[in-house]
Amino acid sequence: MYSFKNDYSDGGHPLLIEALATTSGQMTEGYGEDHYCKQAAALIREQCGKPDGEVHFISGGTLTNLTAISSFLRPHEAVISAASGHIYVHETGSVEATGHKVFPVDSPDGKIYPEQITRVVAEHHFEHMVKPKLVYISQPTEIGSLYSKTELQDLRSLCDALGLYLFADGARLGSALSSKANDLSLPDIASLCDAFYIGGTKNGALFGEALVICNRALQLEFRYMMKQRGAILAKGRLMGLQFKRLFEDGLYLELADHANRMASLMQQGIVDAGYEMLFHSPTNQIFPVLPEELVLRLEKEYQFYRWETLDDSRIVIRLVCSWATDQEAVESFLSSVSRN
Amino acid sequence: MYSFKNDYSDGGHPLLIEALATTSGQMTEGYGEDHYCKQAAALIREQCGKPDGEVHFISGGTLTNLTAISSFLRPHEAVISAASGHIYVHETGSVEATGHKVFPVDSPDGKIYPEQITRVVAEHHFEHMVKPKLVYISQPTEIGSLYSKTELQDLRSLCDALGLYLFADGARLGSALSSKANDLSLPDIASLCDAFYIGGTKNGALFGEALVICNRALQLEFRYMMKQRGAILAKGRLMGLQFKRLFEDGLYLELADHANRMASLMQQGIVDAGYEMLFHSPTNQIFPVLPEELVLRLEKEYQFYRWETLDDSRIVIRLVCSWATDQEAVESFLSSVSRN
Amino acid sequence: MYSFKNDYSDGGHPLLIEALATTSGQMTEGYGEDHYCKQAAALIREQCGKPDGEVHFISGGTLTNLTAISSFLRPHEAVISAASGHIYVHETGSVEATGHKVFPVDSPDGKIYPEQITRVVAEHHFEHMVKPKLVYISQPTEIGSLYSKTELQDLRSLCDALGLYLFADGARLGSALSSKANDLSLPDIASLCDAFYIGGTKNGALFGEALVICNRALQLEFRYMMKQRGAILAKGRLMGLQFKRLFEDGLYLELADHANRMASLMQQGIVDAGYEMLFHSPTNQIFPVLPEELVLRLEKEYQFYRWETLDDSRIVIRLVCSWATDQEAVESFLSSVSRN
Amino acid sequence: MYSFKNDYSDGGHPLLIEALATTSGQMTEGYGEDHYCKQAAALIREQCGKPDGEVHFISGGTLTNLTAISSFLRPHEAVISAASGHIYVHETGSVEATGHKVFPVDSPDGKIYPEQITRVVAEHHFEHMVKPKLVYISQPTEIGSLYSKTELQDLRSLCDALGLYLFADGARLGSALSSKANDLSLPDIASLCDAFYIGGTKNGALFGEALVICNRALQLEFRYMMKQRGAILAKGRLMGLQFKRLFEDGLYLELADHANRMASLMQQGIVDAGYEMLFHSPTNQIFPVLPEELVLRLEKEYQFYRWETLDDSRIVIRLVCSWATDQEAVESFLSSVSRN
Repeated sequence: MYSFKNDYSDGGHPLLIEALATTSGQMTEGYGEDHYCKQAAALIREQCGKPDGEVHFISGGTLTNLTAISSFLRPHEAVISAASGHIYVHETGSVEATGHKVFPVDSPDGKIYPEQITRVVAEHHFEHMVKPKLVYISQPTEIGSLYSKTELQDLRSLCDALGLYLFADGARLGSALSSKANDLSLPDIASLCDAFYIGGTKNGALFGEALVICNRALQLEFRYMMKQRGAILAKGRLMGLQFKRLFEDGLYLELADHANRMASLMQQGIVDAGYEMLFHSPTNQIFPVLPEELVLRLEKEYQFYRWETLDDSRIVIRLVCSWATDQEAVESFLSSVSRN
Repeated sequence: MYSFKNDYSDGGHPLLIEALATTSGQMTEGYGEDHYCKQAAALIREQCGKPDGEVHFISGGTLTNLTAISSFLRPHEAVISAASGHIYVHETGSVEATGHKVFPVDSPDGKIYPEQITRVVAEHHFEHMVKPKLVYISQPTEIGSLYSKTELQDLRSLCDALGLYLFADGARLGSALSSKANDLSLPDIASLCDAFYIGGTKNGALFGEALVICNRALQLEFRYMMKQRGAILAKGRLMGLQFKRLFEDGLYLELADHANRMASLMQQGIVDAGYEMLFHSPTNQIFPVLPEELVLRLEKEYQFYRWETLDDSRIVIRLVCSWATDQEAVESFLSSVSRN
Repeated sequence: MYSFKNDYSDGGHPLLIEALATTSGQMTEGYGEDHYCKQAAALIREQCGKPDGEVHFISGGTLTNLTAISSFLRPHEAVISAASGHIYVHETGSVEATGHKVFPVDSPDGKIYPEQITRVVAEHHFEHMVKPKLVYISQPTEIGSLYSKTELQDLRSLCDALGLYLFADGARLGSALSSKANDLSLPDIASLCDAFYIGGTKNGALFGEALVICNRALQLEFRYMMKQRGAILAKGRLMGLQFKRLFEDGLYLELADHANRMASLMQQGIVDAGYEMLFHSPTNQIFPVLPEELVLRLEKEYQFYRWETLDDSRIVIRLVCSWATDQEAVESFLSSVSRN
Repeated sequence: MYSFKNDYSDGGHPLLIEALATTSGQMTEGYGEDHYCKQAAALIREQCGKPDGEVHFISGGTLTNLTAISSFLRPHEAVISAASGHIYVHETGSVEATGHKVFPVDSPDGKIYPEQITRVVAEHHFEHMVKPKLVYISQPTEIGSLYSKTELQDLRSLCDALGLYLFADGARLGSALSSKANDLSLPDIASLCDAFYIGGTKNGALFGEALVICNRALQLEFRYMMKQRGAILAKGRLMGLQFKRLFEDGLYLELADHANRMASLMQQGIVDAGYEMLFHSPTNQIFPVLPEELVLRLEKEYQFYRWETLDDSRIVIRLVCSWATDQEAVESFLSSVSRN
């Protein structure tokens, strides 16, 4: 059954597997100290316009988030996250497991706004409360929305004023960067965030995220923290090779662009068929609001998640496209939606 | 320069990459809930003779160790490890980072003996001290030695008597299982240990360890613990595929056997050339004791680690063979050793 | 300046200090293993109707909460707390520092209701989310309200149905037990909660809370956990002596009754003077809503906390009475309120 | 039965209880922000010659150690301790429970020597191992021996050279300071250590240790860490009052001097009776080596700990004197030893 459940249902883009295959017999240093990792890191630093940034490759998003956040904070320091933030909801308390409170703020659109941060910081004013120190955002957010350049600049200014770190979870950063609605370049993000990661897993890689630590003070002895959390892969070069391949000729954006276009096609088709969206998504996840009988019918042919049931019994579903999404499948799906 | 530094210098066995390549376009469930993981787990359960065992795939050894141990223990419970144990020495305090003391016992040969455990437990007799609860062993040990069946049975009996868990780190379990000196089968290990892992990374896999939880009480909600530690890979099937391939027709043992034979060849050749071994190794790591001038000469042609400098200035080096080790390279190395 | 800031401004009730003074020369076992602790524990078990309960004395509330909760839970298990709960707001993330997420639910009246718990548990349905396992309530709540017997019974039934622990923070339990609005006896609480603590610090003790672990499964090796968290006092008998004195002839309730009566007097007087309460408090904390000019005037004569500023600029203040509150001071305060 | 088991069998010195009694009715700020704590801190800063030191009062030694150490270190940083160090042996893994490895070094005399530290640091040379960062010593050591001024200066120099913190556990610091064998003043200790604590519990206080943080970088936001670990006492003034009383007219040293003199008397008497000491102790704990029949006889009249059984069946016992030790009891004990 064709799946629109997520963007990690596949097994990695053929070009990346080819890169692994053609180099498999080579002997290199282990633990990410090989030349492929170095080349990939150099490419990323260059494309981020961040010559003094540090790039580390970690096998997945949760492991990246928990390793980075627990390295950056002292024990009494806390994270501010959208209530819909991945670390708050869907990582089994992994940040709290390293000792840090994650403080949620309401986020109907998945985003955090400066006044919310200001209020949280003001409320946490003495040593009987945690000290908010890091703002965790996702770009795009967990529901596919995007921070604009102005919004990110405002967050940065506020973080500077309040002494906070700004950390961006870029599990789907490719989708953000290649969205038509986006006005934030990779150098913008690198100059505005203390650290962020460029997701590989959800954009064609077999696995791997590239964590970019921009703030030099946060770079200190980070590999110790990685090893302690089990985040140094023995054959680290496998990630270096993939990110090198993704970033050497624009493949990373190309794959994300395909995912976005397929999602956009679906979104437009569903709207054209007369249905609403929970909101208009500019990235590779869309959230149609459909009557239950239609959802039931679609579930017989396709895999996807039910997201939420509205008060009027209509159902919000989530459809995710990826680099691997087949345009014919999209068109068939739209036919099913329109069919009566 | 040819490397005998370790058994994870390569990029994965071609057959495993092929398995990944031929399935890359398929869509499956994420997070290790796909049919490849299920097939691989079934194969492993069967070959372990453990139908009620649970098998989980985790990307590396440190992450496996810390996730398993922190799941099995209550906060005041501690681990007994050889002073040379990987978790004690070379995982950056990853177990302690989850809150648990690792108590070291002397281990000239890399192994732990019952009387040591008995003594540690006797000494930790009240609530002002941690409570030893888990015995961590490695098979083979970090210096390549092996527990015999009798030794493992004795540890098991003692653990039963004292209420301890027995956990075996099998990062190089293939090398143990296929060693000529070995008398412990996979079912033996599965029946004697509460949990252990079968290392893939150091035996041809791109990455991945198969954790087998034999003790049913320790299986409860283990995937929560995996997710919390960042140990659930989104495209979990990549490990399922590899372990399926490794275990469906004996490839796992075949690769390890090659590594052992190459190491044995080197060991014999070096002894024949008139040098001592730190001890006779039955597995894929060997520890020749060489004069410094020879070491200096060999370092110009080969990569390997210096292990230790003895009092008489002779140097112990570590040579590691793997599934990928080339017999010609071994023979060239031996020529270099013998050349004067 | 007379203080209504809190109920721990004093230095301990004279009868308790006398008990310490008259026994100071005696030699006893350390670490709470003396006969005073045993006698106090026996009194508490008896008055709780819980002969198989375990009683432990710990120097303060935060230390009690973090030690108990981290002992009761496995790493992936989480706490449900009112958003106003002390552990969520005012303990600097102490529970998270032991690795556990605290999940907040809205609580305008300081209390948690069954439907909130049901919803949180339903929402946390798989291993990508924490597993709610313990419900943390405070009796009285942080804003002085009380759970009724029916309410606590309903929470217990739900916890049984959902497999949750019920833990009550009784920092001000005396004030609850002696409130005119209360219908929950100490045996009720002991039979309905898995564990709870009887606060000494805020009811006349120099320091010390009596943790009662009712659920036998949670008693196992608890003193190990106490020692690990620094919660075993060397001269533990100091707490045993105080709790013995408080519980041997009803002093505990007598002191709390005085605090409640003084608070009630203040509350009535302020209402009589024409002002509103944020809500009617049945315990020793009251929350008058006053115009700012009155607050400013009162601040020149008395110490108390501003709690909140309402939209119409009126200010909610918190006034706390204790066993030590002087009725004359209360009357003077009321005169000041009424004076024009 | 008269006890020589420890120096915390009593209930606090009468003068300290009197200080608590005479002030019990006063109302002060809570949480250690009262004027008694300020006065006590000022006295200690002055007597330490450390005007910019920070002084915090914490209810016990384990809580002080774990709060301080976990505040000072980043997650991958570790502690070097004597294998006999209190945090390594007798605090139930409390430091590991905060995530930090404690690395033991052999210490027949309870002390750590520079060459041991140098070796541990040299061995821990890369990110696969913890990074040693804090040296934990006890003054006096757990077996009553003392660091000399030269020894402490050497440790300081080495710590400076290697970038390590030096932390001294002064649970029995009074006994060290007033020992005839001591040449280290309080200002010496304060100038040589990054932090240390002055033990109250084992020198007459009801409870309480005064942590002195000398290194200004380590002072930052320490009260947050205290609150998070449950180490801020609500009625903090109780410790302020006691330390004020202990330090305002030399009472602290006077009490310790009595303990030392009583211990010295016992030691001399036992030697005069023809028995050996495990070693000659200059502080308030002594370790006689006695035949078992004598030990059995003494156990009928006195309480004390058996420390160790020697190979020749002789038994080492530990006798501890305190400010409260009665000279007549000492003399009776010595009579019992000599009696045949």
